[in-house]
Amino acid sequence: MPADPRRHVSFKPFPLSLPERKRIVPVFVVGKGNVGRAFLRQVAAARPALAARDVDLRVVGIAGRSSFLFLRAGIPDAVLRAAADGTARIEDHPRAEPHGGLADLAAALAARAMDGQTIVDVTAEDDADQHAAWLRAGWNVVTANKKPLTAPIDRYDAIMAERSRPWSPAYRFEATAGAGLPIFSTLRDMAATGDRIISVNGAVSGTLGFIFSACEDGARFADAVAEAKRLGYTEPDPRDDLAGTDVARKALIVARLMGSRLDLGDVAVESLVPDRVREDLDRRFLDAAARGRTLRYLASVSADGVRVGVEEVGRESPFGGLKGPENMFVIRTARYDAAPLVIRGPGAGAEVTAAGVFADLLRIFDT
Amino acid sequence: MPADPRRHVSFKPFPLSLPERKRIVPVFVVGKGNVGRAFLRQVAAARPALAARDVDLRVVGIAGRSSFLFLRAGIPDAVLRAAADGTARIEDHPRAEPHGGLADLAAALAARAMDGQTIVDVTAEDDADQHAAWLRAGWNVVTANKKPLTAPIDRYDAIMAERSRPWSPAYRFEATAGAGLPIFSTLRDMAATGDRIISVNGAVSGTLGFIFSACEDGARFADAVAEAKRLGYTEPDPRDDLAGTDVARKALIVARLMGSRLDLGDVAVESLVPDRVREDLDRRFLDAAARGRTLRYLASVSADGVRVGVEEVGRESPFGGLKGPENMFVIRTARYDAAPLVIRGPGAGAEVTAAGVFADLLRIFDT
Repeated sequence: MPADPRRHVSFKPFPLSLPERKRIVPVFVVGKGNVGRAFLRQVAAARPALAARDVDLRVVGIAGRSSFLFLRAGIPDAVLRAAADGTARIEDHPRAEPHGGLADLAAALAARAMDGQTIVDVTAEDDADQHAAWLRAGWNVVTANKKPLTAPIDRYDAIMAERSRPWSPAYRFEATAGAGLPIFSTLRDMAATGDRIISVNGAVSGTLGFIFSACEDGARFADAVAEAKRLGYTEPDPRDDLAGTDVARKALIVARLMGSRLDLGDVAVESLVPDRVREDLDRRFLDAAARGRTLRYLASVSADGVRVGVEEVGRESPFGGLKGPENMFVIRTARYDAAPLVIRGPGAGAEVTAAGVFADLLRIFDT
Repeated sequence: MPADPRRHVSFKPFPLSLPERKRIVPVFVVGKGNVGRAFLRQVAAARPALAARDVDLRVVGIAGRSSFLFLRAGIPDAVLRAAADGTARIEDHPRAEPHGGLADLAAALAARAMDGQTIVDVTAEDDADQHAAWLRAGWNVVTANKKPLTAPIDRYDAIMAERSRPWSPAYRFEATAGAGLPIFSTLRDMAATGDRIISVNGAVSGTLGFIFSACEDGARFADAVAEAKRLGYTEPDPRDDLAGTDVARKALIVARLMGSRLDLGDVAVESLVPDRVREDLDRRFLDAAARGRTLRYLASVSADGVRVGVEEVGRESPFGGLKGPENMFVIRTARYDAAPLVIRGPGAGAEVTAAGVFADLLRIFDT
C-alpha cells in the first residue's frame, strides 16, 4: 500500500461556497529566513496538487528587510525554489524594489492590494501595528511571528478588534505555539463546540527540554547547557533560552485567547540565568529523583493565572515520559477531565513551522 | 484570568465568503443513542454563542430506528434537551412520522431537502449506500459511524467518488478514529501541505488498553478481562473487544485514506479470543518485562501494509508510557521523522465523540 500524499490530498473536499471554478489565492510572504524559505519550497512543491483541485495558489510577493518583489501574476516556481535554496537573491530580481521598513512596505503593498490576499508573516519583527493595519485593509494574516501576539495589550486588542467583525478577514497563528503541532486548531474546536478549557500546560522549549533530559540522566546543569550550546540547540547566547522569555511568549498567547489581560512583563517567569538558580537545580534534580520524580520547565495557563518555570512531575505522567527536545501540550477541559488531551512532537524547526503556516493558509480557503 | 469559553469562541473569525449576513445551517441527526443525545445537548448549549456570530445552527430533524421528526424551522432547544435527557421521546412528538428503515428515511428526507443541509450519522448502521446517496443529493455528511468507511471497497469507492468532484459537499469522519482527538484533521493538513505520511500507529481500544495495563502491573490476562467486564469497559460479550475488529476498522479507515485497497477481511488481525492465545499472553508479558519492555495492542498502517495485534514496545517509548484506557496515535511523516507527532487522550465516550462530530460540522461552515 503506497503512502502516496497525492492520494491523501484528494480526500480534502472543496467547500460548497466556492465563488468560481478556479480559485486564485494570492499570498505575500514577509520574511525570508529559514521558515520563509521552507514555506516557499513547500508551496512550490504543493502547487501542482492544489492546481488539480482548481486552487491557483500564487505567491505574488516576497519581502526581505529592505527590498521586496511583487509580481501580480505570481512569482514563478523556479524563482520560488531559487529563493528557497539561496541560489538566487530576490533583491537581484530585475523587478525587485527597495522599501524603508515595515510601514513603508505596508504602504507599497496597499497600492498593489489584491482581492482576498493573505500576508504571511515569518519575521521576528515587532509588527503588531502592521497586523492590525493589514486586517483593516481586508487582508488575511497568517503568522509564525509571536511578537504581535505578545505586544502590549492595547496593540494586541487593536489586532483582535479587527478580526471580531462578522466580515473580518482571517487571522491565524497556529505556528506560534508548537510550530506544526495542531494546538490552536484543537483549542478552537473545543471552544466552538462549547467545551470549557480548564488548563493548558506545555513543555514548549526544545532547548530546555534537551537540557532537563540530560540532567535527569545525571548531567550537571552547567554541563548540559554547554553540551546544548555545542550541538547548536541554543540561541547564540544560551541565556536567551535560560531566561524563559520564549516560553513566556507562548504561554501568554494561549492565556490571552483564554481571556487574560496580562502583558509579557506580568507573566511570572522563573529565570534560570542567575548562577545560584543553576546550582540549585542540580540539588533539586537529586531531590526529585529521590522521590521517584523529575523536573520539567513548563508553561502553565489556567484560571489561576500564568506561570512559567521548573515543575516537579511524576515519571509516569505525560510530562515525565517526555524526552529530549520534543514539545508537549497537555490540555484539560470539562470534557477532557479525567484524562487530558495530549499533543507531543517537535515544536520547532523550519520545515514543521512552515507546514504550520501553510496549513493555516489552506484552512482559510479550503475547509 | 477566567477560562471563559465564550471568550475563546470569539477568536474564531468568519470566512470572507459568507454568502449572507445570517447563515442558516440545517442539520439532520440520524441516530439517538448516547452519542446522538450528547450531540443534541452540545448543540442546544452552543446555539447562543453561534447566534452571536450570526450562525443559525438549526437541528431540523432527528431520526431513530423507526420514526423521525422534521421541523423545517428547527426543533426548539427545549425539545432537543428533552430528547437528549430522555425526558421526552421524539416518537411521541405530534409531528413525528414513522419510517421503514434507512432507505425509506432517505426518501422522506429527499422530499424535505434543505439547501446546504448536513446529515449527522451517529448510528452503527451499515449505511454506506445512504452516505453515497446523501452526498449525491448535495448534502454534507458528518459521521461517527465507522461502518460506511469500512464497507466493501466498491461501496467505499462509491462514497469517495461523490466527494471528489470540485463542487462536492463535505464528507467528514473525524470521530471515527479517536472520537474528539484531532487525527484526520492533522493527517489532512499534512497531506495538503505536501508532507508524506510514512506510518500511523495507534493504541485505539480503550478496553484493550485497560486490560494490557493491568497485565503490565502483574494481573493475569483472564483476570484483567474479568475486571474490565465488571467495570463496564467491555462490550456485553468481551470477545467482541478481544477479537480486535473495532481496532481493525479504525486501521482500515486510515489505510484507505493512504491509498489502501484492502477490505476489512483482508486486514491481518491478531485475535485474542482463542484460549491458547490468552494463556500465551501471560508468558509474553513476563518475557517482555524481563527485557525491560512491555506489550500493547496496536494498529499499524504503513507502506508495508496494515497490521492489528500485540506489539512489544519499550517502556520509554510513547506507547510504553501510555496507561489504562487512553488512546494514542503516533504519526511519522517525512517532516515528523526523527520524532513523530503524537496525539493522546480518551478515544471513546459520548461527550468527546459528539464533540468530534460537532467540530467536523462547524469546520464545514466556518473555517
